[in-house]
Amino acid sequence: MASREQEILDAARKLFRQKGYYATTMQDIAEAVGLQKASLYHYIRSKEALLLQIAGETMRLFHAELDRIEAAGGSVAQQLAAAIRAHVKVVAEHQETLTVLFRESHALPPEHAEKVRGETGRYTRRLTELIARGVAASELRPVDPGAACLAILGACNWMYRWYSADGRLTPQQIGDQFVEVILHGLLAPGGAGRQARTPGRAP
Amino acid sequence: MASREQEILDAARKLFRQKGYYATTMQDIAEAVGLQKASLYHYIRSKEALLLQIAGETMRLFHAELDRIEAAGGSVAQQLAAAIRAHVKVVAEHQETLTVLFRESHALPPEHAEKVRGETGRYTRRLTELIARGVAASELRPVDPGAACLAILGACNWMYRWYSADGRLTPQQIGDQFVEVILHGLLAPGGAGRQARTPGRAP
Repeated sequence: MASREQEILDAARKLFRQKGYYATTMQDIAEAVGLQKASLYHYIRSKEALLLQIAGETMRLFHAELDRIEAAGGSVAQQLAAAIRAHVKVVAEHQETLTVLFRESHALPPEHAEKVRGETGRYTRRLTELIARGVAASELRPVDPGAACLAILGACNWMYRWYSADGRLTPQQIGDQFVEVILHGLLAPGGAGRQARTPGRAP
Repeated sequence: MASREQEILDAARKLFRQKGYYATTMQDIAEAVGLQKASLYHYIRSKEALLLQIAGETMRLFHAELDRIEAAGGSVAQQLAAAIRAHVKVVAEHQETLTVLFRESHALPPEHAEKVRGETGRYTRRLTELIARGVAASELRPVDPGAACLAILGACNWMYRWYSADGRLTPQQIGDQFVEVILHGLLAPGGAGRQARTPGRAP
């Protein structure tokens, strides 16, 4: 992509995050990159097209990581652990973009929103299928693969709200902890909690 | 609260979710409840005050559930399972409010944003302390309580984006599945995955 277009995209991403998509005008974006508003239209069609492009860039990253992990192979547990770590890393490195995507995706016009939903849906299905494969092979416990997948995505995506590069934990440490919780669970083996197989369900 | 005020709050919550907080005007809210804009100010001070009130209502619900669970007592595992189920239930029942809160909390003026952050921070600390207590008593595995808490909150909060009352799983079933994944983990005991204690970390 031409560097001017990338510059416009970066400026838009920042403004959308700070002011919100609705409150950001083409004039704001033009000023941020030192262009006349009319010249801006030489590079981009609309504010909506910018938001779609921002969303698309990030979705491609997530899919590229899954491609890499699937190509490397290994057990479902290994692939799932790698997917959790990769997802955490992408969220940490693209927090600004994801903040815009999660906050503003509802602002996309229907046909564009459909496109973004299609890509996120495809990613969710890929992860769900990986979990289903593990359940079928008894490598994973007999959970509902769809619900387990959404728990994983929630844990990882939610980072966009709390992660800080200056925070207590590095993305690597967060990834390790999430893998621990999600693959191994919180209950200590043989601990008091293990006996209560379904805690809270008893009368 | 007077029913007129509640009606205004409900209308604002709906409009904020549909159009976004920025794009919603006091005029929109007045029209939605059949009032003149000037009369609206008899009931509410500002759009910001409305958003703060919406956020406050929901935070009180989450704290009330934790109060109830702590009062009931039991093991950490039982309390944690109950907290996950309660959180899932509140998200399902107050999805519209949470959508507004998660999307628009950044739009609050600094002193109000501080208040919301204070309440969500207090809730996070309460859950983190519960997990830390379980780790200290060896009822839970030696995870990082802060990271584990944020994984739980992420899994539950993320529901605001995907939960549908017409969906495949009821809130009860989602709560059960999340408890399974978070307390017991995905790996089958004795399964192939269990041997790889830290999958993906080996070279």
